Amino acid sequence: MPAGLANAGLAAVDPAALDAADALASFRDRFVIPDAGLIYLDGNSLGRPPLAALERLARVASQEWAGELIRGWEHWLDAPLRVGDLLGSEILGADPGEVAMCDSTTVDFYRLASAALGARPDRRFIVTDRANFPTDRYVLEGLARDRDREIAWLDQDPIEGPTTADIAAALDAHRGDVALVTLSHVNYRSAAIADLAAITTLAHDAGALVLWDLSHSAGAIPVELAAGGVDLAVGCTYKYLNGGPGAPAYLYVRADLQSELRNPIQGWFGQADQFEMGQGFRPRPGIAGWLTGTPGILGLVAAEEGIRLSAEAGIARIRAKGVALTEYAIALHDARLAPLGFELGSPRDPDRRGAHVSIRRPDARELTRRMIAAGIVPDFRAPDSIRLGLSPLTTRFDEVHRAIGRIAELATS
Amino acid sequence: MPAGLANAGLAAVDPAALDAADALASFRDRFVIPDAGLIYLDGNSLGRPPLAALERLARVASQEWAGELIRGWEHWLDAPLRVGDLLGSEILGADPGEVAMCDSTTVDFYRLASAALGARPDRRFIVTDRANFPTDRYVLEGLARDRDREIAWLDQDPIEGPTTADIAAALDAHRGDVALVTLSHVNYRSAAIADLAAITTLAHDAGALVLWDLSHSAGAIPVELAAGGVDLAVGCTYKYLNGGPGAPAYLYVRADLQSELRNPIQGWFGQADQFEMGQGFRPRPGIAGWLTGTPGILGLVAAEEGIRLSAEAGIARIRAKGVALTEYAIALHDARLAPLGFELGSPRDPDRRGAHVSIRRPDARELTRRMIAAGIVPDFRAPDSIRLGLSPLTTRFDEVHRAIGRIAELATS
Repeated sequence: MPAGLANAGLAAVDPAALDAADALASFRDRFVIPDAGLIYLDGNSLGRPPLAALERLARVASQEWAGELIRGWEHWLDAPLRVGDLLGSEILGADPGEVAMCDSTTVDFYRLASAALGARPDRRFIVTDRANFPTDRYVLEGLARDRDREIAWLDQDPIEGPTTADIAAALDAHRGDVALVTLSHVNYRSAAIADLAAITTLAHDAGALVLWDLSHSAGAIPVELAAGGVDLAVGCTYKYLNGGPGAPAYLYVRADLQSELRNPIQGWFGQADQFEMGQGFRPRPGIAGWLTGTPGILGLVAAEEGIRLSAEAGIARIRAKGVALTEYAIALHDARLAPLGFELGSPRDPDRRGAHVSIRRPDARELTRRMIAAGIVPDFRAPDSIRLGLSPLTTRFDEVHRAIGRIAELATS
Repeated sequence: MPAGLANAGLAAVDPAALDAADALASFRDRFVIPDAGLIYLDGNSLGRPPLAALERLARVASQEWAGELIRGWEHWLDAPLRVGDLLGSEILGADPGEVAMCDSTTVDFYRLASAALGARPDRRFIVTDRANFPTDRYVLEGLARDRDREIAWLDQDPIEGPTTADIAAALDAHRGDVALVTLSHVNYRSAAIADLAAITTLAHDAGALVLWDLSHSAGAIPVELAAGGVDLAVGCTYKYLNGGPGAPAYLYVRADLQSELRNPIQGWFGQADQFEMGQGFRPRPGIAGWLTGTPGILGLVAAEEGIRLSAEAGIARIRAKGVALTEYAIALHDARLAPLGFELGSPRDPDRRGAHVSIRRPDARELTRRMIAAGIVPDFRAPDSIRLGLSPLTTRFDEVHRAIGRIAELATS
């Protein structure tokens, strides 16, 4: 069936009707949106600010920092674990005490990958894919070099992402010699969803540990870390979780691995009796032992408000709207853009797709510039992709409709 | 000469006269101080918020985050290096392009210590002192274990800190086998200043690299990294630099070492052509190659305002007032507290002392609690020290006078 025919019905639906039926429509009012005319399709890269985040920032600065001063640490000290538990229970399907907010995704990824290699000293290989997010790949390259390991790169389909069969083949090719399997749960470019539970099981069957990067899935699709038996995970909070530019990241370490694995950066926030400042590092029990240095409180409280909004909306409703928005965008793509030489760069099966859609054309870089000039903000991803992020809490169906119409105009003018 | 006699004259000076003659007095008005009656003597742990930081935070959140959205990165991307250069040139005596704001002190310390060990693969020892700040010691213990190295611990005088002779002896004991010498420039407990230039030269003569922790010196005393030929340095911005709770840290890598040493955490912010997201890590030239993950912008802009205020005041005037405040506090200690069983826990020579003063008595822990209840906020440091931080931009001589008087009352009641 040629692209376009399947979704012709959906493409013809009035976006106002879809917005009227949107159970999450009112959440848009909880965000600061100074220019309602701007069509922002990059909430998957930097989410909009919750009103509550701005209020909280002002309060923390003027009352807590200025008024409580050093005494603020009486409650700030708990914040990385308090927010971690909120995120873990409401968004990540983790058990209490398995998630901490700290550092950046890059630093957390380094620490967990390093810990995993340390726990499998006699295994040579790290399995990951060439389409994985750059920072993960770069960190792994450094670790492979410094720890004398090797990366078994997967070159899977660029749209559909690594299948369980791809992973099984890699594990088989290096049978008994894979220390770590690490992938993005949702691919940053195509939005392909990897089968977290199946791949985790495959890795475990092969004796490897698994580390998931949840940056493009958390807050967009259900994540079930505990149910999937996942070992390790990291992610950022500045995308679908609306935590703010460079908001703190999080790490998840399954409870039984927290004392078995070793945090390579043992800092004073991971020390038992931190303020005794004694001799000899003794890790705090649990996930607290995976903290490192002093957490940035301004970024953390803003992120907490963003996470709270996603928790309040509920991941099931967020997912349902993400599917509806992306299905609508693809139907409009098929009807309006495919005839102009665009190709879809995301899976067509909504069960295999996160909350963004990539569309491809050779002139994508220039087209992105012209879209931004025309008041539509997507992301360009080299060499030929325009990424349309459809953040369920803030994106309206009408915006999707207008954006695709405008892209069609720009692509023919 | 018994304590007290030397400074009897200074102890009798009217604090109002000292405040009237204070060239930095007006800087206090640039900070948010909701309770003017509270005597805050912990700006060396968490500095007060600059008014400009609160205004900047509000503007960045409501205009840049909310209004520019992802386009904010067009200028946020430069922020770690822009603020690093401001700090480097105005506060640290570094050359342009040698300082970057990023991560936490703990993570930066780990990265630079790790890089130093990597550059001296055949040398076994790390020289540091037992009185060094805990997070530095803990990180070194982890690195020593993971990289099969050994720490040569100095047990120097707890008040005067490590002398150049102490360092020379340690280097001599492990001649040709020391990879790294790392110390705090100002000791967090006693405020003892280590001789940065002399110790750096000693380390270099022995073929070792040197890594300084500037957390308790930057913004309090002159730091001359370039003049001292320092290899590596880290520090925090939430103390004398008034950057906010958990404000981002900074790292310094001397220009000629930036490509010679290797950043163990190679993330996407250190990648050339970052947004091409290509295969294979290729570090950005210069200090930019030492960045890792996405920087927290909210914390960074607040820190920039704090650093600006110190730059405006000028480190020479800050140092002069720090000496005057600590001299005054010690004179009052000698006159009022020494007779009550207190002992000074800081060097008496102002040239060897930073901007805080430790006073010691066995009941210091309980006394600190009672001071806080009475509206005077110092820091307790186990087992017996009360740390009086005399932040030059915000502390008045009158506050020092009232605080010591009140401590004398509490210590006898």
